[in-house]
Amino acid sequence: MSFIGGNDGLLDNINSPDDLHGLSIGQLEALAKELRQRIIQTVAKTGGHLAPSLGVVELTIALHYVFNAPRDKIIWDVGHQAYAHKLITGRRDQFHTLRTYGGLSGFPKRSESPYDTFDTGHSSTSISAGLGISTGKALKGEKDKVVAVIGDGSMTAGMAFEGLNQAGETEKDLIVVLNDNAMSIAPNVGAFSSFLSRKMTGRRFVGLKRDLENFIRSFPGVGENILNLVRKSEDSFITFFTPGMLFEAFKFQYMGPIRGHRLQELIEALTNAKNLNGPVLVHVLTVKGKGYPPAEKDPAHFHGVGSFEIPTGTPLKHKPKSPPSYTDVFGKTMVELGRKNNKIFAITAAMPEGTGLTGFSEAYPERFLDVGIAEQHAVTFAAGLATEGFRPVVAIYSTFLQRAFDQIVHDVCMPNLPVVFAIDRGGLVGEDGPTHHGHFDITYLRSLPNITLMAPKDENELRHMIYTALEHPGPVAIRYPRGNGLGVVCDPELKAIAIGEAEVIKDGGEILIIALGNCVQPSLEAAEELEKEGRSVAVVNCRFVKPLDKRLADMAARIGRVLVVEENIRQGGLGSAFLEMLNDNGIEGVHIRRIGLPDKFIEHGPAGLLREKYGLDAEGIVQKARELL
Amino acid sequence: MSFIGGNDGLLDNINSPDDLHGLSIGQLEALAKELRQRIIQTVAKTGGHLAPSLGVVELTIALHYVFNAPRDKIIWDVGHQAYAHKLITGRRDQFHTLRTYGGLSGFPKRSESPYDTFDTGHSSTSISAGLGISTGKALKGEKDKVVAVIGDGSMTAGMAFEGLNQAGETEKDLIVVLNDNAMSIAPNVGAFSSFLSRKMTGRRFVGLKRDLENFIRSFPGVGENILNLVRKSEDSFITFFTPGMLFEAFKFQYMGPIRGHRLQELIEALTNAKNLNGPVLVHVLTVKGKGYPPAEKDPAHFHGVGSFEIPTGTPLKHKPKSPPSYTDVFGKTMVELGRKNNKIFAITAAMPEGTGLTGFSEAYPERFLDVGIAEQHAVTFAAGLATEGFRPVVAIYSTFLQRAFDQIVHDVCMPNLPVVFAIDRGGLVGEDGPTHHGHFDITYLRSLPNITLMAPKDENELRHMIYTALEHPGPVAIRYPRGNGLGVVCDPELKAIAIGEAEVIKDGGEILIIALGNCVQPSLEAAEELEKEGRSVAVVNCRFVKPLDKRLADMAARIGRVLVVEENIRQGGLGSAFLEMLNDNGIEGVHIRRIGLPDKFIEHGPAGLLREKYGLDAEGIVQKARELL
Repeated sequence: MSFIGGNDGLLDNINSPDDLHGLSIGQLEALAKELRQRIIQTVAKTGGHLAPSLGVVELTIALHYVFNAPRDKIIWDVGHQAYAHKLITGRRDQFHTLRTYGGLSGFPKRSESPYDTFDTGHSSTSISAGLGISTGKALKGEKDKVVAVIGDGSMTAGMAFEGLNQAGETEKDLIVVLNDNAMSIAPNVGAFSSFLSRKMTGRRFVGLKRDLENFIRSFPGVGENILNLVRKSEDSFITFFTPGMLFEAFKFQYMGPIRGHRLQELIEALTNAKNLNGPVLVHVLTVKGKGYPPAEKDPAHFHGVGSFEIPTGTPLKHKPKSPPSYTDVFGKTMVELGRKNNKIFAITAAMPEGTGLTGFSEAYPERFLDVGIAEQHAVTFAAGLATEGFRPVVAIYSTFLQRAFDQIVHDVCMPNLPVVFAIDRGGLVGEDGPTHHGHFDITYLRSLPNITLMAPKDENELRHMIYTALEHPGPVAIRYPRGNGLGVVCDPELKAIAIGEAEVIKDGGEILIIALGNCVQPSLEAAEELEKEGRSVAVVNCRFVKPLDKRLADMAARIGRVLVVEENIRQGGLGSAFLEMLNDNGIEGVHIRRIGLPDKFIEHGPAGLLREKYGLDAEGIVQKARELL
Repeated sequence: MSFIGGNDGLLDNINSPDDLHGLSIGQLEALAKELRQRIIQTVAKTGGHLAPSLGVVELTIALHYVFNAPRDKIIWDVGHQAYAHKLITGRRDQFHTLRTYGGLSGFPKRSESPYDTFDTGHSSTSISAGLGISTGKALKGEKDKVVAVIGDGSMTAGMAFEGLNQAGETEKDLIVVLNDNAMSIAPNVGAFSSFLSRKMTGRRFVGLKRDLENFIRSFPGVGENILNLVRKSEDSFITFFTPGMLFEAFKFQYMGPIRGHRLQELIEALTNAKNLNGPVLVHVLTVKGKGYPPAEKDPAHFHGVGSFEIPTGTPLKHKPKSPPSYTDVFGKTMVELGRKNNKIFAITAAMPEGTGLTGFSEAYPERFLDVGIAEQHAVTFAAGLATEGFRPVVAIYSTFLQRAFDQIVHDVCMPNLPVVFAIDRGGLVGEDGPTHHGHFDITYLRSLPNITLMAPKDENELRHMIYTALEHPGPVAIRYPRGNGLGVVCDPELKAIAIGEAEVIKDGGEILIIALGNCVQPSLEAAEELEKEGRSVAVVNCRFVKPLDKRLADMAARIGRVLVVEENIRQGGLGSAFLEMLNDNGIEGVHIRRIGLPDKFIEHGPAGLLREKYGLDAEGIVQKARELL
C-alpha cells in the first residue's frame, strides 16, 4: 500500500489513549498512517464502513490526545466512523474480528468497552445523549468533558436540531464536533448543507470583518461609536460574518473551520474548546475516504463495502450470475412503473443507492426527492403529495422507518392516504447487527388501522406487489429483505394481486406451514424434507400480514397443525396475528407453533448464520415441524 | 361580554371565505370580535382549545381574505387553533357541536370540509405536508398557493426543522406563517425561542444597518468598495441584521415581524407574500388568548379548558370532592420520591402542567427539564442521563410518545438503560379524538426486548408502580389513563411490586377476567353482575403486560374460559400477548375473548360514551362474558 506509507510500529504500542501522550506530532502523523493501513487491510477482508472511518483518523487521534477518555466522554454519532477509536482504545488485537460473528461490533457498544460512551448506529442521537451526560455530570459536580462527534449529514435530522436547540439554552458544557465532509451517505441535501458549504467564503468574511472594523476604527469619533454600538449589542459582531452564524444563533460558541487532517491544528482547536465553558461547536472539515484513493474517488460506494482488493478497491466477490437483489428489482420496477404513471413519486432519506432509486432519480428527476436523513419529513411530505393525487413511494430501511412511526400513524394511516412504504432490509441484515436489523416492523405496522401490509416470497412477487400497492387506494407497506432474490424469472407483465389473498403453494393434510416473505423458500425446502419422511405438508405464501387471508383459518382447522414462519420478533408478529384470527373466529384445537425471532436484540453476524441459529432456515423449520407432528 | 364588543351580525352572513371580500377593514375588525364572541361562548360550554384559537382570529380572517381556499391550501399546524377557520368555512351552524360526539372535530379533518387541507393534531407536520402539496402542485402546473401556519412552539420539534431545511432547498412556492406568541402550551424553551424573542432588538439592528451603510457610503472610494464586496457576497447584507437571519440562512425570504392583531398590516403582508415565488416566511406576532382577559392572563390554563363561566373564566365543574387525577398522583409521588432520591430526574416535552410535573419542577428545578416539543430529544437525553447513574423519568402522553419510538428502541431498550416512561393519556382521551387517543402503546412497547410494561388499576397502584419502576435496573413504561382516579385511599408507604406478578383480586371457577389498568374496575363490576346471575368469576389485575405473569396460563387452563380486557387496539395488545403465552406453553382448549378497541381510528366524544360504545364498560364485559358462558 504505497499510497499509505510505511509502518513505524507505533500502533502496536498503543494499548490505550494514554499511550498517545508520549508521541510527537510527527509520530502521531505516522500513527495516522498506520491506523489507515490497519483499517483498510481489515475492512478489505471483513467489509465495513470504510470511507467514514478513514475520514476521521486524525480527528480520532486528536480527540484522544486532548481528552481524557473514558472519564471524558466521546460520543460517535451513527458510530460507523469509530474504527480508529476502537483501534486506539485497547481493541487492536481483536480488530480483525470486526463485524464477524462473535467479534467486534461495527459500532460503539457500551458492553464492548468503557471507551464506548453511548451505543449508536442510527444517526443524530449524539447531541441529545451528550447533553444528558453533561447534565448528569454537572449535577454530580464532575468536571469531565463531553464531546459529541456528528457528521454534517446527521445534522439534517430533526433530532439533531432538537438537541442543538436545547443545548444552546441549557448552557451546559458540551463540545459538538461537526465532522463536515459534505456527505451523509450520499452527497448531502438541504438548505443547512448548502449553508455549511459557504464555508469557503467564510474566510473572506472573516477578513472582510477585520477590514471593516479597522476601517471604522480609523475614523475616531463616529467610527468608534458605531463599533461600540455593535459590540455592545447582545450578539458579537463576528457572528454575522462567519459560517458560525447559525450555531451562534443557537448560542453555541463556534470555532472553525478547522482542517480535519492537520493534527496540529486539530489538537490546538480541541484544546481551546476543552478550556471553554458552555456549548461549543468545533467545525472540522474532513474528506470522506481520506488516504485511500479509491474511497476518496467514490466515497458513496466506499461508505459501506464488502470485501475488496486493496490496490484497486475492486470488490472481491465477482458474482456476475448471482440473482439481482430485492433492492435492484425494486429500483427497476419503479423505473418501469414511473414510465406509465406520471403520478408516481419516489422519496428516499439519504439512501438513493441503498434503496435502489438511483435509476428512478435519473429517469424522472422531477418526481424524485432525496430528503436527507429526515425520515419524519419524508413520510409527511409523501402524505402531502398524496393529497394532491400523487402516488408517493417512500423507500426506507425497516430500522430507520422507526423514526417515522408517528408520521405513519398520524399523517398517513389516520387520513387513509395512499402512500406506499417500500421497506428494504426487513428482518435480519447481518453484519451491521442489532442497530440495523429490521424486526419490529410487522408488529408495529399491523397494529395500524387502514394499512395493507405485505411481503413478497421472491423478486418476481415483489414486482407485482409494487404494482398492486400503487393501484390500492390506501396506505400500503411492502417489506422485503436485504440481499439477493431467489433468481426466479420475472414476469414481463405486472399484475395486481388480490388484496389479502394468500397463495397456497401446495396443499397437504398433516401440517400447514404459513410463511411470510423470505421464509417461504426455506419452508418449501422444509416441506420437501418432511415429505421425504412421508409427511403430507401444505405450504402457504402468506403474502399479506394485513389483511390476513381468512381462508387460512379454515385450512388450519382442517389440517390441525400449523407452523407460522416470519423473520420478525415473535411478539405481535404474523404468528400472533394468526392466533388472533383463529381466536376471533372461535377456531380451537389447532396445534400451532410460531417461528420468529426471540425477545432480544439480535447480535451481528452473517444473516445465514443468524437464521440458522434462530431456527429460521429449512432445518429449523423441519425441526419445529417434527416437534409438532 | 362587554370586553368583546357588539354583534353586528356579520358572521351570520359568512357562509364561505368568499363572503369576506365585500367587507371593509372596519367590518373585518368587527367580524373578528364576533368570531371571538362565538368561540368564547361555544368553548365555555363544550371546552376546547380556547387560547390558541383566540390568538389567530385576525390571522385567520386575513388568510382567508388574501388566499383563495380551498384552491389555495391553508394548513393549520397542530390544528387546535382552527376554530375561526371552521366558523368562516361553512361550519358556523354546526359550531355549537364542537368536540361533542358526532359533532365537529376540534381539529382540521379532510373528511369534515374541503377547506381542511391536511389532518392535524400532532405538532410540526405542516411544513413537510405543505412542501409535499406544493411539490405536487408544481408538477401539475397549478399556481395555487400553499400556506403552512405554524406556532413558534411547534418550531421546536425536529420535524419542523427537517421541513424547513428541505423547503429552503427545493425553492418550491411555500408560505410559512410563523405564529409567534412566545408560547407552545407552556412558555417556550430552547435557543430558537430566545432567538425569536430578540425580535424587539431587531428594529434597532435594521436602523443600525442603515446608519452603517450610509456611513460607509459617505466615504467614496474605500467605503463603496467594502459595501460592494458585502453586497456582492452570496448573502444579502440585511440578513445579518434582522431576526430573519436564521430563516434567510435556510433560504427563506423573511417578512416581519408583523403585528398579528392588525388586520390591515396582516393583509398587506400576506398579499406581498402571495406575490413572491419560492419559500417565504411571514413572522406574525400574536397574543395567545387575545381578546378574552382571563385567557390573556393565563394562556397556559386556557390553552385547553373544560367548560367555564364567561365573565370570570372560572371552571363550571366544581368538584372539590372528585378523586385526584392520575396525572396529579403521578406528580405528587414524583415530588415525594425526588426528596428521597436525588438521582431522580424528570423530563417533559412542553407539558409541565399536563403531565403533573409542575410541583417537581418547583421542588427540584435542577433535576427537571422541559425540552419543549421534542420527544425524540427527550428520550435520548434521558438515555444519556441514565448512563451517568441517574434515574430519568420521561413523562409524555401516549400519543406523543409515538414520535420517539425509534429512540425508545435504539437508545433505551437496546442498551438496556433504566429510563422510566410515565405514559399519561394511555387509551381513550375523549373529546380530542383520534389524533390524541393513545391506543397503540401496548402493542409497540411490548414488542421491545428489555422493557417492563405495566399499568395500574388505580391511583394507589400507580404510586407503587412509580416506586417499583425506579427500583428496577432496566427500561420501564407505566401507562395510565387520562382523568380521575377511583378515589381509593393511597398507602402512605410506597412499596415495590414484584416484577411480572399479577394480582388475583378474586378467584372463581367458571370464567377468568384478566384486566389491565383502568379496565380492572369495570371488570370487577362486571364480575359482581355475573355473580348475581350465579356465576363464579375470577378477576385478575394484570399489572404487567411484560413480563406477563405465567401463572395466568395455569389459571386459564384450570378455569377454561378467559376474557382479556384492555383499552388498546386489539392487534398485538395484551389479549394477543395472552394468546401467545398460552400458545408458547402448549395450553389448548381454553375459550378466550379479547376485549379491546377495534381496528380503526376512534372518533372523538366523551370517554365514557366511547367506552360504552366499544364494550369496555362493565356492561360490555358482562355481555362478552355471557357469550363466552
